[in-house]
Amino acid sequence: MYRSLLSLSFGAALLAGGGHALASDNAQRLHQTAQALFAPLPAQVDKADNPITDAKVALGKMLYYDPRLSESGVISCNTCHNLATYGVDNLPTSLGHRWSAGPRNSPTVLNAALHTTQFWDGRAVDVEEQAKGPVLNPIEMALPSEEVAVARIASMPEYVARFKAAFPESTDALSYDNIANAIGAFERTLTTPDRFDEFLKGDLDALTETELAGLDVFINQGCVGCHAGPALGGQIEARFGVVESYWEATREYIGINQSTMPMDVGKFAVTQKQEDLYVFKAPSLRNITRTYPYFHDGSVWDLRDATQIMARVQLGNDLSEQDLDALMAFYGALEGEIPADALTLPVLPASTAQTERPSMR
Amino acid sequence: MYRSLLSLSFGAALLAGGGHALASDNAQRLHQTAQALFAPLPAQVDKADNPITDAKVALGKMLYYDPRLSESGVISCNTCHNLATYGVDNLPTSLGHRWSAGPRNSPTVLNAALHTTQFWDGRAVDVEEQAKGPVLNPIEMALPSEEVAVARIASMPEYVARFKAAFPESTDALSYDNIANAIGAFERTLTTPDRFDEFLKGDLDALTETELAGLDVFINQGCVGCHAGPALGGQIEARFGVVESYWEATREYIGINQSTMPMDVGKFAVTQKQEDLYVFKAPSLRNITRTYPYFHDGSVWDLRDATQIMARVQLGNDLSEQDLDALMAFYGALEGEIPADALTLPVLPASTAQTERPSMR
Repeated sequence: MYRSLLSLSFGAALLAGGGHALASDNAQRLHQTAQALFAPLPAQVDKADNPITDAKVALGKMLYYDPRLSESGVISCNTCHNLATYGVDNLPTSLGHRWSAGPRNSPTVLNAALHTTQFWDGRAVDVEEQAKGPVLNPIEMALPSEEVAVARIASMPEYVARFKAAFPESTDALSYDNIANAIGAFERTLTTPDRFDEFLKGDLDALTETELAGLDVFINQGCVGCHAGPALGGQIEARFGVVESYWEATREYIGINQSTMPMDVGKFAVTQKQEDLYVFKAPSLRNITRTYPYFHDGSVWDLRDATQIMARVQLGNDLSEQDLDALMAFYGALEGEIPADALTLPVLPASTAQTERPSMR
Repeated sequence: MYRSLLSLSFGAALLAGGGHALASDNAQRLHQTAQALFAPLPAQVDKADNPITDAKVALGKMLYYDPRLSESGVISCNTCHNLATYGVDNLPTSLGHRWSAGPRNSPTVLNAALHTTQFWDGRAVDVEEQAKGPVLNPIEMALPSEEVAVARIASMPEYVARFKAAFPESTDALSYDNIANAIGAFERTLTTPDRFDEFLKGDLDALTETELAGLDVFINQGCVGCHAGPALGGQIEARFGVVESYWEATREYIGINQSTMPMDVGKFAVTQKQEDLYVFKAPSLRNITRTYPYFHDGSVWDLRDATQIMARVQLGNDLSEQDLDALMAFYGALEGEIPADALTLPVLPASTAQTERPSMR
């Protein structure tokens, strides 16, 4: 419905010459539509049963940066979700314990708390549940058990005190659940307001004309079908390759066979249901200019290529160069500011004689 | 000379009961001796031909945290010299490209600019020369050449602009030399003032009585022979194992054979001179409580054990439990503050189509 309406109105504005008054009209119309489809990023993403407190966030940040949550003592959450590079490692797939290459691209932690599910296949309900995975995954951080993770942290008196302060009502403050709750609370503060938020909040001059044109393309070409809400994504799961095979299209488009791995079956691996074959969570497009390479397998490095591939395999469309230009400009407005607190490295507590020593094996 | 003098005076103070006035006398005498042997940490360590400027330090910090200076795109200077853990990785020896274990323990970057040579074997003259090593070392960051390092950085316009601003008089601003100069300038700001500095500057109450007793032991037992100057070390090279073999003493003391590697010949490997056999740089003891595990091979985790081993193999001495207690207390006063600026992660420039992609091979 909004598609035909906006196409007409935007087309009319262009035909009429695109002066400032008209551009403003255009901005106004797009603003109204955008408000219905998107939402400004909140300062933090609250969760009723894991309230965000300063003590918990500070603790979660320490754990996030602490490599002792890995068997080797080298890999922290921040290794693959590096906040210096917008919460990703900019690798096709991440390196883990003993130089293992993971099967999927590490998604950014920025704005991830807004997603309705976590991981590419949606197998965790929230960032708290997600945080429990990589610590124990043998090809990621590779701790052998929850007990080992808790024992490592509990060997350091400063951590013990901080868990008590962060979870004052908990009889078992330092638990694996609360390690995840603290990291989750920290991640719930990782939202990155950008110029698109200014626009959504009512500053109609926040976006340039080209960025507005990109927003128009984004809405009218149907990208918004999967990439809506405050994070422009993260809210639905969809088959990757609706119109044609992603696998074939990508190989053809980028001209080479980038992957030596078999095609990823997506959510099917979790549910074994036919309808989940090749189903992945639609990722957030906030900071998409910085979270290359793209797709669940990190096979495509260029955002313009990735956009054209999406248009082809999901929408059966070939975008014009002009539309791609406009979309690239719009994506630029989605590059936000990483919270300063999150970028301040915590000085970590010293290990003690009781702290298990790292093992590279 | 100071040895007998101090032993006598300190002993007399203890015999007399150790009241406040006497303790103060003791502090005063130790202060005078300490001033002759040590020096307060400077705010930064200047170098005539690499002046420290804000632009250069900011650039150097970005490079320090940038994993694109490694072939894999994962390993930055901060991986092995993690500022969240006092500039070390707290591993016996570091993990590098393809999970390689290096032959020696990663020394801290904190206060390292004060050392008269760099690396355990002193093969680099300063932090600038040191910074050039790991980037190209095949078992560390593993870039294939200086040209590749420069090309990677030069592919990002923000870096190009920052090199011009940091090296305005250079005709070839973005060079491998200047990558090292920028990182070096950043490292020259990494000094960590502590309570011992307050004492050296004249606050005679800055150290507790036990810490003062530790300082006295440190001086009178001869530790200061190698660990003097502002960094309490980093100024001389010495044979490790003067009185007896470090290798045997360590195995015997810690009760197990911790290393499967052959005994490290030290500086001999660089010079092939007989007098350099088993010669290593005496490391700084600033922040020594945090830079475990100890020695060039990271074979000893406990600071008390390491201290006793040093006393035995270097000085032919067995320290009493009381002396060890006092030394442990004194070491605590050497735990300093990491500069806040250095702990603020820089947001790194985005890679471009020209930026070489990471390779895990």
